[in-house]
Amino acid sequence: MEVLKAANARERAGDSVLHLEAGQPGTGAPRRVREAAARLVMSENLGYTDALGIPELRAAIAGHYARWYGVELAPERVVVTTGSSAAFVLAFLALFDRGARVGIAAPGYPAYRNILSALDMAEHAIPVNDSTRYQPAPKHLDRIAGPLDGLLVANPANPTGSMLTAAELQDLAAACAARGTALIVDEIYHGICFEFPAPTILALRDDAIAVNSFSKYFGMTGWRLGWMVVPDPLVATVERLAQNLFISPPAISQYAALAAFESYDELDANVARYAQNRQLLLEALPQLGMGHFAPPDGAFYVYVDVGGLTNDSRAFCRRMLQETGVATTPGVDFDPAWGHRFMRLSFAGATEDIAEAMDRLRAWLPA
Amino acid sequence: MEVLKAANARERAGDSVLHLEAGQPGTGAPRRVREAAARLVMSENLGYTDALGIPELRAAIAGHYARWYGVELAPERVVVTTGSSAAFVLAFLALFDRGARVGIAAPGYPAYRNILSALDMAEHAIPVNDSTRYQPAPKHLDRIAGPLDGLLVANPANPTGSMLTAAELQDLAAACAARGTALIVDEIYHGICFEFPAPTILALRDDAIAVNSFSKYFGMTGWRLGWMVVPDPLVATVERLAQNLFISPPAISQYAALAAFESYDELDANVARYAQNRQLLLEALPQLGMGHFAPPDGAFYVYVDVGGLTNDSRAFCRRMLQETGVATTPGVDFDPAWGHRFMRLSFAGATEDIAEAMDRLRAWLPA
Repeated sequence: MEVLKAANARERAGDSVLHLEAGQPGTGAPRRVREAAARLVMSENLGYTDALGIPELRAAIAGHYARWYGVELAPERVVVTTGSSAAFVLAFLALFDRGARVGIAAPGYPAYRNILSALDMAEHAIPVNDSTRYQPAPKHLDRIAGPLDGLLVANPANPTGSMLTAAELQDLAAACAARGTALIVDEIYHGICFEFPAPTILALRDDAIAVNSFSKYFGMTGWRLGWMVVPDPLVATVERLAQNLFISPPAISQYAALAAFESYDELDANVARYAQNRQLLLEALPQLGMGHFAPPDGAFYVYVDVGGLTNDSRAFCRRMLQETGVATTPGVDFDPAWGHRFMRLSFAGATEDIAEAMDRLRAWLPA
Repeated sequence: MEVLKAANARERAGDSVLHLEAGQPGTGAPRRVREAAARLVMSENLGYTDALGIPELRAAIAGHYARWYGVELAPERVVVTTGSSAAFVLAFLALFDRGARVGIAAPGYPAYRNILSALDMAEHAIPVNDSTRYQPAPKHLDRIAGPLDGLLVANPANPTGSMLTAAELQDLAAACAARGTALIVDEIYHGICFEFPAPTILALRDDAIAVNSFSKYFGMTGWRLGWMVVPDPLVATVERLAQNLFISPPAISQYAALAAFESYDELDANVARYAQNRQLLLEALPQLGMGHFAPPDGAFYVYVDVGGLTNDSRAFCRRMLQETGVATTPGVDFDPAWGHRFMRLSFAGATEDIAEAMDRLRAWLPA
């Protein structure tokens, strides 16, 4: 956030800033979604909807699981939410009591622990590294004293992009089940995968919660729309919470999102651009002395070890922004313990911006 | 909610249902807002915005206070939220710790206590009646053992529509300040007033929180957009919470809402219709043996004492819906203790529907 503010301030001052700090696609919603929205705002009253979302969208989301994963899903288990943010709030409140201990990989998305903390729950940080490809594994659970109330896994992960295979996810889920630990899988970067398709937890178990979003693959970031799929016995609890905390997700976004499921071609073209950007980074970074990074299997990030260049990634990123106009995110935002030697690069933007950023860094870094 | 589901089920079965249970305007967003949205979805990428809302909208909201109330407000104190629901979540988390006791008038909007309960805080119900025109007063605070952490006042109130005058609000705020009780005023029905203009707490004090919404007067219900104005020292806390819990309010809604402040004429025409509907009810209800109700000063509700007709308003409303197709809300939804003898009628719908509902009740009720 500090970087974002500094980057925006520089830009307003007229400097050329390359946004490799952004956690959102450089493109917006697909054409059909935009067109549907433009029609709907003129023709419909757009009042409150069902708290769990309009039935058509819940059915369309269920259909998406059939199409992508071959999973048959009852639409009644689908909960449409105001972004994945609302899904996490609802999942935590539905599953846990105050004081609950929830395991989260470090590095990880900082809002997880901040939401938990706002709800008087506690993150149990699980340090992950190369040895498990930056993902939690059953061995981590073995090392924790006492069972966790929950484990939150991001697959693909932010900031690393690293992914669990179906077998690894299966093992981890079984280890959770054996301990009575509720499992939540953040699948918001599904559809943006470069090495293998991301497995959904819903294909493996029906006692876990999967969280997803229209913000990443579907490009509908500012539309604030996400969803989660919950075990049958949780639906009523989540409905009651959603009614009271959110009333309903945005109506325009919900109706327009129906057209997202007719936009796979356009969206896959975005993913092809991410793949090109990623390739560009994977070739350039080693030449810059940044050849050590987490496996960028999916999402649109590379989490780079800059320990050879700095011991203070926050100062490093700040200086890089000041001296080159390349905005990145320091690892400490994702990992208070080890993030001082990491930096996250986003490749969600335009290819020419990524290329230009690499050129600027090449000129800036010691040869 | 039970009534709404039953009403919708009857309607799907082909019956004619008159929606006097609805808590939202029968009309949608004003024309200029719709047109702006239709343009924006085609031309803009609509990503995340600042967590506190786009600066233009925060400034426009501040301008609204100057126009309506003659209050000069720093835009920096304005927090744009995902509906007033998000504002309550943010206000409670920013002001209170778990276990906090927050006073709320009974009858009152049920989500208040349900949000508090989800956050492990406790409602302290303040029974109100004719003696204080269904609003809390300093004398209620005197009767409570120990200070409350907070007091939440709705002005105009839901379900009653009753309002505090500026002098009453001033007295209540002073009583809160004397006790160290934080004051939150729900002003979401401002602009829909029939007896006198609603005073804003912001004209009286700068240590209280005012919550507002684009859902009622502005007709943008499904757009999920609201705001709150907080004391200066709370802004940073609220910003941090908003970033983590919501990321940002919907972008389309925010940009389009700028045009809401150019739509007063259209919106005031809606209020004129509410006034006509209200007059129709105020004339018809006494003839139906329902002449006793809370003062309907504002909002679009009449909270009617049906104690002469039933001791079980839930059963009464259910039977009324079954036998006449008139949907209303039983008082128990707003007041577990005394609501069994009350019923809420909404007059936010079409005038002909209100008239038709009164005709049906006239034929249905014992003469």
